[in-house]
Amino acid sequence: MSPLFTVDRTGDTPIYRQIADQLRSAIASGQLPPGAQLPTVRQLAQELSVTRLTVQNAYADLQSGGWIESTVGRGTFVSEQAPMQLHWRAASRSPTPALVIGDILQMGQAQGIRSFASASPDPSLFPETKFWECLEAQRSQTKIVVSYGAAQGDALLRSEFVAYLAERSVVAGPDEILVVSGVTQGLALVAQLTAQPGDCVLVEQPTYVGFLHLLRTQGLQPIAAPMDEEGPILEEVERLATAHRPRFFYTVPGFQNPTGYQMTTERRQRLLELAQRCNFYIVEDDIYSLMAYDAAPLPPIKALDRTERVFYITSFSKTLMPGLRLGMVMAPPPFRERLIAARIAADLGSPPLLQRTLAAFLHRGEFRRHLRQTIPTYRERRNAMLRALESFMPAGVTWTQPAGGFCCWLTLPRHPGMGDAPNLVLQQGWAVAPGNVFLADGNGDFHLRLCFGALTPDNIRQGVRLVSEVIRRQLAVEPPAPEMSGEWMPLV
Amino acid sequence: MSPLFTVDRTGDTPIYRQIADQLRSAIASGQLPPGAQLPTVRQLAQELSVTRLTVQNAYADLQSGGWIESTVGRGTFVSEQAPMQLHWRAASRSPTPALVIGDILQMGQAQGIRSFASASPDPSLFPETKFWECLEAQRSQTKIVVSYGAAQGDALLRSEFVAYLAERSVVAGPDEILVVSGVTQGLALVAQLTAQPGDCVLVEQPTYVGFLHLLRTQGLQPIAAPMDEEGPILEEVERLATAHRPRFFYTVPGFQNPTGYQMTTERRQRLLELAQRCNFYIVEDDIYSLMAYDAAPLPPIKALDRTERVFYITSFSKTLMPGLRLGMVMAPPPFRERLIAARIAADLGSPPLLQRTLAAFLHRGEFRRHLRQTIPTYRERRNAMLRALESFMPAGVTWTQPAGGFCCWLTLPRHPGMGDAPNLVLQQGWAVAPGNVFLADGNGDFHLRLCFGALTPDNIRQGVRLVSEVIRRQLAVEPPAPEMSGEWMPLV
Repeated sequence: MSPLFTVDRTGDTPIYRQIADQLRSAIASGQLPPGAQLPTVRQLAQELSVTRLTVQNAYADLQSGGWIESTVGRGTFVSEQAPMQLHWRAASRSPTPALVIGDILQMGQAQGIRSFASASPDPSLFPETKFWECLEAQRSQTKIVVSYGAAQGDALLRSEFVAYLAERSVVAGPDEILVVSGVTQGLALVAQLTAQPGDCVLVEQPTYVGFLHLLRTQGLQPIAAPMDEEGPILEEVERLATAHRPRFFYTVPGFQNPTGYQMTTERRQRLLELAQRCNFYIVEDDIYSLMAYDAAPLPPIKALDRTERVFYITSFSKTLMPGLRLGMVMAPPPFRERLIAARIAADLGSPPLLQRTLAAFLHRGEFRRHLRQTIPTYRERRNAMLRALESFMPAGVTWTQPAGGFCCWLTLPRHPGMGDAPNLVLQQGWAVAPGNVFLADGNGDFHLRLCFGALTPDNIRQGVRLVSEVIRRQLAVEPPAPEMSGEWMPLV
Repeated sequence: MSPLFTVDRTGDTPIYRQIADQLRSAIASGQLPPGAQLPTVRQLAQELSVTRLTVQNAYADLQSGGWIESTVGRGTFVSEQAPMQLHWRAASRSPTPALVIGDILQMGQAQGIRSFASASPDPSLFPETKFWECLEAQRSQTKIVVSYGAAQGDALLRSEFVAYLAERSVVAGPDEILVVSGVTQGLALVAQLTAQPGDCVLVEQPTYVGFLHLLRTQGLQPIAAPMDEEGPILEEVERLATAHRPRFFYTVPGFQNPTGYQMTTERRQRLLELAQRCNFYIVEDDIYSLMAYDAAPLPPIKALDRTERVFYITSFSKTLMPGLRLGMVMAPPPFRERLIAARIAADLGSPPLLQRTLAAFLHRGEFRRHLRQTIPTYRERRNAMLRALESFMPAGVTWTQPAGGFCCWLTLPRHPGMGDAPNLVLQQGWAVAPGNVFLADGNGDFHLRLCFGALTPDNIRQGVRLVSEVIRRQLAVEPPAPEMSGEWMPLV
């Protein structure tokens, strides 16, 4: 198979990547069919005069994308489930949040797949030069950044977070902040601290799939509160809180994942009063709020909190880069020490190097500049998404109108063919997240989440057209089963 | 107070560090006494013509070291507990592992304290140039490293871990490995997966304080198995396993923390048989094994495991740098998928940038080179530690003879004055970890852990002399209380 390969030792592309790319093309083109055996690492290394580790790295890269599979003792083969045959395990009859998160991460890495599936910023908008300047500025402090840091987080970073919070109208001292490796860790620690297995937790319906997953992991029971375009419906929240005595209410008030809804200030205020009256905490996930396209972001619920009811959590995964794995929690005072103790038990703390780098990035005003520069681009993409949905979607499909964030939530006609849509779309090289996993009970094939952050307007238009065509075709194939009509209400 | 300050805008030292350093000296010298009020951030910024954030950063730095305290609305003051008055909260009557870990991290950061307390490598031996080369090599892949990575870990890094494990005589494929952010996270996830609140877990006595802390956090009950210089005493392990039906046995077979003991191969083999017979898992923490000063490291228990009884966990915190926050878990097959799901629920994964950097560092052979270069230095420090103990310690004090790792475990005479030793030593500018927190029941003031990794032979000698003098003085002050003799046995 060596005629396949040309290895360029002079260019910028690492050799393992060149090998991986050429193998990938050969698989995608059918030149290497599913099940075909690849040469051993040793053979290929010899043939190409590269080190074995180079070939091993190329194979590892392909393997992580699902293109090839290795079995100890047997060899390495083109995957039967190569990305052209990837499928949403979550679109099966018994989906789990862990499966869909795994799928989303895999689709994000798979070559040749364009993805509406991940609520991520566009890596090509990342302020690479400025980030590397801030990183390299840490070189003079190597001795500090290689050591264990404080579990609560680097003091310089917490000091920057104080300024960040002040701009969000939240008054906090550096001692009141815990650095975490992303919102997910913040949520996991807070849930662990405030609830016991078996306890109930109120969530918005639909909600962040990762949160449903961690509830399941911790043995907690989600209770779904319905939403409208102004946020959770508080009469329902009150009724559910009274009936189930939840430990806390998890909410994403700013440009919620997956709906893109923003909770109104009036509802934020009333939710706080309700929390006080019904004695539950509010866990506020503020991760999308600064991605506001039509007006200035609203102050978080925490800014209105006079009775220490709110755990405030945010991160830089949507506004800057997910790969940084850095965020913060501000907990009510009685929980602060235990929260640090829980972080020590979880992983001792975040890498000091990245904490200092983010501190420098914030300190130099690069974060604010980055937001200012990228918001117009994301706004344009949001607009392209809404225009394309308007242009292409068949009658009976409805969607939310996000004023910020990366997510748009589609409600499909109640037709039995809808459950297959994600995998039919995938067969044509596009990933959209099935909606069922964003629902507390995991049921219902009549929703899709489309994220527009990482795609150009042209791509968005092309992708939405393709999704529309699949939905149209499915609607045409088979009439709705009569026993399924009547009792169904759209979720949002 | 401005006459205190000179700000040099031409040098390499950041201005906030200059300000912090000068304030620190002023506090240490008594020029600024405990309780003295510092100028506001605004005042000092104006006076020195620097930005407010610069002053804020200086204050944050001092605050994290315990030198000053801020109270919203009141101002900033020299701490009443400034580092010269730091004390071991853990040496109190009701110590908790969280307290001692917090203390150790704080002492590690406090200026003017030399520390035997943290089992860390020496940051000044860190291969700075090579590390930054590997880091900067990732610049061409910025788009990859800023994005969410696979929760299981970067494929290139897992591929390097395969080679790493092979050198430890462990055969694994990249799919069998989960990347974690340090051994602590690996332990937390494994405990969460294998045990329920209320369950028993066998530990060595004494053992890693961080593990005792996470057991407490998860509601698990440690059962202490005594050790001798060949490892845990297996007759006792069998008796305890039969009586308590533990979910697993946590062991650090290579140069254990805190004793420095290495489990013999024969005992490793017998422990595996025992695990099989009594139906418990072995959770093997292999973090210190490569720091072997007298002979080649032994293969881990995992290398002998034919029945999938062993969770193998290690990291690069002791062999390279703690600040990297990277390690791995290799779990028995039935647990692998759930382990990845647990990682997703915990924090979604480790930062891809640092994973790729470590992969490059391993790939280029820098890790092996680094070990080769630094082992002789650590051997010398170990030797200096044992010589100093021999020279200075009073009769009745005994200690372990570590053939690797960073820890030496002292057993003191059973004298009521021993509990005060850590704080008396601290008053003279040295930190040693009180031994009680390494014991499952937290009782017993008759042990100290001395770590020699980050100190020069001269410093070690000086520090051990000082510790010896404190012990001597305490032994002289007061005779042993009669009611305390008789039933006590040294723990190791």
